[in-house]
Amino acid sequence: MTVQSHVFQPEGVDEHDDLAAAKDAQGTTWIRVSDGTAAELEAVGETFGIHALELEDVRNDVRPKVEQFEDHLFVLLKTATLREGETTFAEEVKTRSVGIFVGPDWLVTLSTQTIPAVGLVWDAVTREEKRLLARGPDFTAYRIVDAIVDSYFDVLDEIESDIEAVEEEVVGATGLDLLEDINELRRDLLSVRRVLWPTRDAVSVLARGDLDFVDETTEKYYRDVYDHVVQLVELNETYRDLVTGARDIYLNSLSMSTNEVMKTLTVVATIVLPLTFVVGIYGMNFETMPELSWPYAYHAVMLGMAGIAGVMVLYFRREGWL
Amino acid sequence: MTVQSHVFQPEGVDEHDDLAAAKDAQGTTWIRVSDGTAAELEAVGETFGIHALELEDVRNDVRPKVEQFEDHLFVLLKTATLREGETTFAEEVKTRSVGIFVGPDWLVTLSTQTIPAVGLVWDAVTREEKRLLARGPDFTAYRIVDAIVDSYFDVLDEIESDIEAVEEEVVGATGLDLLEDINELRRDLLSVRRVLWPTRDAVSVLARGDLDFVDETTEKYYRDVYDHVVQLVELNETYRDLVTGARDIYLNSLSMSTNEVMKTLTVVATIVLPLTFVVGIYGMNFETMPELSWPYAYHAVMLGMAGIAGVMVLYFRREGWL
Amino acid sequence: MTVQSHVFQPEGVDEHDDLAAAKDAQGTTWIRVSDGTAAELEAVGETFGIHALELEDVRNDVRPKVEQFEDHLFVLLKTATLREGETTFAEEVKTRSVGIFVGPDWLVTLSTQTIPAVGLVWDAVTREEKRLLARGPDFTAYRIVDAIVDSYFDVLDEIESDIEAVEEEVVGATGLDLLEDINELRRDLLSVRRVLWPTRDAVSVLARGDLDFVDETTEKYYRDVYDHVVQLVELNETYRDLVTGARDIYLNSLSMSTNEVMKTLTVVATIVLPLTFVVGIYGMNFETMPELSWPYAYHAVMLGMAGIAGVMVLYFRREGWL
Amino acid sequence: MTVQSHVFQPEGVDEHDDLAAAKDAQGTTWIRVSDGTAAELEAVGETFGIHALELEDVRNDVRPKVEQFEDHLFVLLKTATLREGETTFAEEVKTRSVGIFVGPDWLVTLSTQTIPAVGLVWDAVTREEKRLLARGPDFTAYRIVDAIVDSYFDVLDEIESDIEAVEEEVVGATGLDLLEDINELRRDLLSVRRVLWPTRDAVSVLARGDLDFVDETTEKYYRDVYDHVVQLVELNETYRDLVTGARDIYLNSLSMSTNEVMKTLTVVATIVLPLTFVVGIYGMNFETMPELSWPYAYHAVMLGMAGIAGVMVLYFRREGWL
Amino acid sequence: MTVQSHVFQPEGVDEHDDLAAAKDAQGTTWIRVSDGTAAELEAVGETFGIHALELEDVRNDVRPKVEQFEDHLFVLLKTATLREGETTFAEEVKTRSVGIFVGPDWLVTLSTQTIPAVGLVWDAVTREEKRLLARGPDFTAYRIVDAIVDSYFDVLDEIESDIEAVEEEVVGATGLDLLEDINELRRDLLSVRRVLWPTRDAVSVLARGDLDFVDETTEKYYRDVYDHVVQLVELNETYRDLVTGARDIYLNSLSMSTNEVMKTLTVVATIVLPLTFVVGIYGMNFETMPELSWPYAYHAVMLGMAGIAGVMVLYFRREGWL
Repeated sequence: MTVQSHVFQPEGVDEHDDLAAAKDAQGTTWIRVSDGTAAELEAVGETFGIHALELEDVRNDVRPKVEQFEDHLFVLLKTATLREGETTFAEEVKTRSVGIFVGPDWLVTLSTQTIPAVGLVWDAVTREEKRLLARGPDFTAYRIVDAIVDSYFDVLDEIESDIEAVEEEVVGATGLDLLEDINELRRDLLSVRRVLWPTRDAVSVLARGDLDFVDETTEKYYRDVYDHVVQLVELNETYRDLVTGARDIYLNSLSMSTNEVMKTLTVVATIVLPLTFVVGIYGMNFETMPELSWPYAYHAVMLGMAGIAGVMVLYFRREGWL
Repeated sequence: MTVQSHVFQPEGVDEHDDLAAAKDAQGTTWIRVSDGTAAELEAVGETFGIHALELEDVRNDVRPKVEQFEDHLFVLLKTATLREGETTFAEEVKTRSVGIFVGPDWLVTLSTQTIPAVGLVWDAVTREEKRLLARGPDFTAYRIVDAIVDSYFDVLDEIESDIEAVEEEVVGATGLDLLEDINELRRDLLSVRRVLWPTRDAVSVLARGDLDFVDETTEKYYRDVYDHVVQLVELNETYRDLVTGARDIYLNSLSMSTNEVMKTLTVVATIVLPLTFVVGIYGMNFETMPELSWPYAYHAVMLGMAGIAGVMVLYFRREGWL
Repeated sequence: MTVQSHVFQPEGVDEHDDLAAAKDAQGTTWIRVSDGTAAELEAVGETFGIHALELEDVRNDVRPKVEQFEDHLFVLLKTATLREGETTFAEEVKTRSVGIFVGPDWLVTLSTQTIPAVGLVWDAVTREEKRLLARGPDFTAYRIVDAIVDSYFDVLDEIESDIEAVEEEVVGATGLDLLEDINELRRDLLSVRRVLWPTRDAVSVLARGDLDFVDETTEKYYRDVYDHVVQLVELNETYRDLVTGARDIYLNSLSMSTNEVMKTLTVVATIVLPLTFVVGIYGMNFETMPELSWPYAYHAVMLGMAGIAGVMVLYFRREGWL
Repeated sequence: MTVQSHVFQPEGVDEHDDLAAAKDAQGTTWIRVSDGTAAELEAVGETFGIHALELEDVRNDVRPKVEQFEDHLFVLLKTATLREGETTFAEEVKTRSVGIFVGPDWLVTLSTQTIPAVGLVWDAVTREEKRLLARGPDFTAYRIVDAIVDSYFDVLDEIESDIEAVEEEVVGATGLDLLEDINELRRDLLSVRRVLWPTRDAVSVLARGDLDFVDETTEKYYRDVYDHVVQLVELNETYRDLVTGARDIYLNSLSMSTNEVMKTLTVVATIVLPLTFVVGIYGMNFETMPELSWPYAYHAVMLGMAGIAGVMVLYFRREGWL
Repeated sequence: MTVQSHVFQPEGVDEHDDLAAAKDAQGTTWIRVSDGTAAELEAVGETFGIHALELEDVRNDVRPKVEQFEDHLFVLLKTATLREGETTFAEEVKTRSVGIFVGPDWLVTLSTQTIPAVGLVWDAVTREEKRLLARGPDFTAYRIVDAIVDSYFDVLDEIESDIEAVEEEVVGATGLDLLEDINELRRDLLSVRRVLWPTRDAVSVLARGDLDFVDETTEKYYRDVYDHVVQLVELNETYRDLVTGARDIYLNSLSMSTNEVMKTLTVVATIVLPLTFVVGIYGMNFETMPELSWPYAYHAVMLGMAGIAGVMVLYFRREGWL
């Protein structure tokens, strides 16, 4: 069953099957639709005066936002989870929309996929903290918003360990795989940022303090959530900077590697080529080459070449090429 | 015939040949000029009190905008299509302007080229959804704006497949062709952005809610369109990021390629040059070279050189150069 | 004669030599000073109550702007022309200032250099379109502003052909000359932007609609000019992007060129060095080298070397280095 | 003891153990909790009407901010110290939060770690400058804010000496260690900036002049602090620029190094290879090689080769490669 | 003497030793403290009601700003001079603060170092233009502000010649010295910008027109100064662009240089290595090598090699490597 309804009354919690009855019942009502079909959303929407466009926003991939209507407040948020991306364009950061509707004495949460954060608050409210709902639906809405915002910290934690892994590999790296990993991380952070920015705007509207269905005493809680979102935005920027740093080290690691290869070639060629020239000289077939008949000429030449090689090795060592 | 006029009345749809009569007729009038000549535009403009400057805006390449006049609302939008570019400066993203004029009980759409999005709404309104026009010309205007905005998703989809194609080729690429393709993609995205940004501003004006010829009940539909435009803007930015990422991989692919070439040269030269030196030694013509007469000297030297080569191959393997 | 004065009256155009008389005459007066000396500017300024600082702005290199005074409106604009630059710091984009002063029934245009755009409007007003001035000095001022703004399209057209020329040369380029050309283009575009941005602000003030000497009916014409300036600004940005793209291709063309050179060296050295080693072996003077006396050894070695070379050529072809 | 309370009265300073008594006592009260436990913070919070969310802000890692409540002003600031970082993600710039609460006649400072800047002001106020507190709690709060802001100059000084050290090593650098140092410096400056920006905003609120618990005469002191924060922000940007400059020099130092290596190889190979070819010629075994029997041929060839080598050395010297 | 006081009266200029008397005297008073000690500043401050914090701003390195007080206006500006920098962190652009205090009938200028711009205005006012001060202290303040702003043009001129010098050296450059020069220029421009931006804000406040001690007739003069500051800001940006352009050319000059070296190596090695292989063949000691005994074999081989070399030279010429 994806539609659940609870009516919180001083004497306890009632469950209703009938939405209209639940709405009209004394006390505070919370209708929670998770994993809802289009029909279920419509049924709830009709009962609580939620416009078809709002339901469409919940079903589709729309930016987080807050909209004030005459008889309720509409808060659209998104949760994010990292998942294995198969193709380039399947967004690695998967988001799910939750619609939170706050009326004078009722709260409706709608989503077409299960949202763990909403489930956690539902359980907390139902089992242990019944008094929570007694503080009004706007406070429970705050609890949900808070839980959703907190779930982003998990996403950024996962990204952080990916960055850590990349940073470790980055120095000795020689292939292009790592560059693709780095690009993917940048893309993930970009996706998260794309959700965080409008979330910040939405929460800022909630904290601003001139909305009809948010009590003054709840506003300071929303300011708290706002601080968290700002912190998330900054964390995201810091991670972008770390990724850029890792990328720089990687690119220079490539360049260093070319340099290393060049040095090896230069050292070998510079020592061996002149010596090869020397032995070439004494391989010439001129009739008159007096050195050739000197008894120790061979040994002298060999010693001389060893000397030249030694000097060069010393020179390269001084240059730091060996 | 490029000028079509329909008057929607409770009892049915009337077609008028006379513009003035169509305007004055009871019910809601829609005059649609597609592929219109300057004369046709002027004729319609005169009848409906549309200023010559507005008509000029429709004919020329002007940024999307919304302007409120005393007796009507002027919405200028653009559709975009990708086409094969022949020269650098022929914009690959071709745009066409549509002028949408909303009066108290009439709607005029003007364009000098056929706009499929307008045609779709015209057909829908005429054939099946006559009641749509009954909701007032501003609602039908919303339908047109919505159709035009949705058409951008197709353009971005096409660009997306181009990006996908580029991304696949990017790793092994060695020529400059791909760089030109990447530059072209960046230019396309820039062109699209140049249309999307003022479109966003224009739609935001329509959604803001203080215009004379937009009913309050229609505003929330415009807010919906606004959300779509914002999504398009962000999609565009994401694609720019993907193109930049592909470009980075491409440039490093070039650099890797140089590195690969260097390694080959170094390995070969470093193994062969010292050996050449060795055989050079025993090619010298000194009279006193005792090794030359040792019976197995030749074989020993050959074995020794094989040993040196083997050690070097092992070294290069350890360095990851082989 | 650089000071010209026309008074447009219902019955025709009067020319006055006396500035004060021209100002007081019935009808609409236009005093046009082109190529004016300091003295001439001052004489006109005194008659029409134009402050010395405003005259100084016309004479000097000041940013375009609009200033509202009690008895007149001061519009300062600039025209731009490209010219051959001799040194780095002589600005290639040469600008000239025009001061346009709009009073209740008079118009004064001042400049210290001939401004073709003003001349065109003067001729049009005087010869054919006398009724134009009848619509008030603010409408003629719009005509001048429009002509000046349109003249920027010519400048950007010239820059466009320069960009086209650079783009064609960019792929095979090997020298630094092209980089200097590209830098110059960037500098030109920057100079144009530096004029366009304040022009946009100034025209936006004229279009905004709360100035004393701009009639309501003229405002929509200024909005039109504003759209043109915005288009120019965007064109400028697009050209900057094209120049950046050309620069990228150029820089990578250099890098490709190094790569090409490397490959040639590597192919030659890798084929020839091992063969040289082989022939070195059989050049050794060991007494016991059984192969030397085999009858077909020479031919076998030559064939073997040809085989090695062939294998290597195949390998390089597979790698795409040949 | 981490909770200290002083009541400043005309006749002297009283210490109270009881918080409520201290609050109600005549005179100005300062309760200072440094290194406070959650319980201690709560006890103080309860007495002075500080909300649980504010206490949480002090305990957690929240951005500096100013919040105006009905009965007190809440200023949250952070001090920063550099410390040795062990892993990439342990922030090298360690920050500690201080909550400063200003009431009509009391001041409360809360922190969960010792804050030297607060201690300095406490000592100054207690020992020598009792009259300071007599000027009202807002002036003492200014003293604390000033001391905290000044402590950032020390952090930037430390970073400056690190930059100086890096700049000295940067020219001859060949390894990637330095690049990591540079990245670390950039990260540090980023961390400092992340604290400075909201601090600037918070102090700007204090200086703006419409807060309930800040006296008009104190505002100009806050404007002074504001100037300091702006200076810190700019210093930070300058240091970022220096680090970027050092990075550029470092990267080009690498590139220069490759160039150096290339030149050595080219000089040696270009001189020696042609000579080796020459001696190879006279090592050929053709029966008819008339030169071989000329008496001074050997010496002539040697001289000729010396000549070639000399010419090449001159050429390389002219090219600047030697 | 660093404290000078003049009282300008209709009948002439009075010098007063007593500050209080000078302030109270009929006419307009200008107290000028240049090169002032802390004590002198305090004495003047006390007499004219200037707060200790303002004096501190004059003494310290504070950003230019304008502050409106009840009984006077405080304008803090800075002059800039270029000087030889000894260490990296000694700012090459040295700035000096001037405090300009404008009261109803008095003007006070304070500085701890000699400011030539203030001296020039002082001399002009005292010797020739006594009537200037008669126009009120705010007009003289404008003169000082104008002189200070104009002095920045000299600084930018000096930087311009440095840029010119760098641009000339940049093409053939091979060392890192030039890169350090370029970095220094960027740093200088950054320092100048850091002074110009707040100066622009301050002058904009003076030109805005709602300050107590600035007469309406003076405002248009400040607008003029404002235009100059904006021009300076833009000049600064243009110079930054020039420096960036020079840097690009320099970096590519390095890269070109590597390319040049590579080409030389490749040409020599590619021509010589195959020839060396050929002569190696005829140096082999096989018993059966029929060519060796052909009478013109030697000459044929030499000619053949010359042919190969010739073909290669042609090839390289076609490739543009020679």
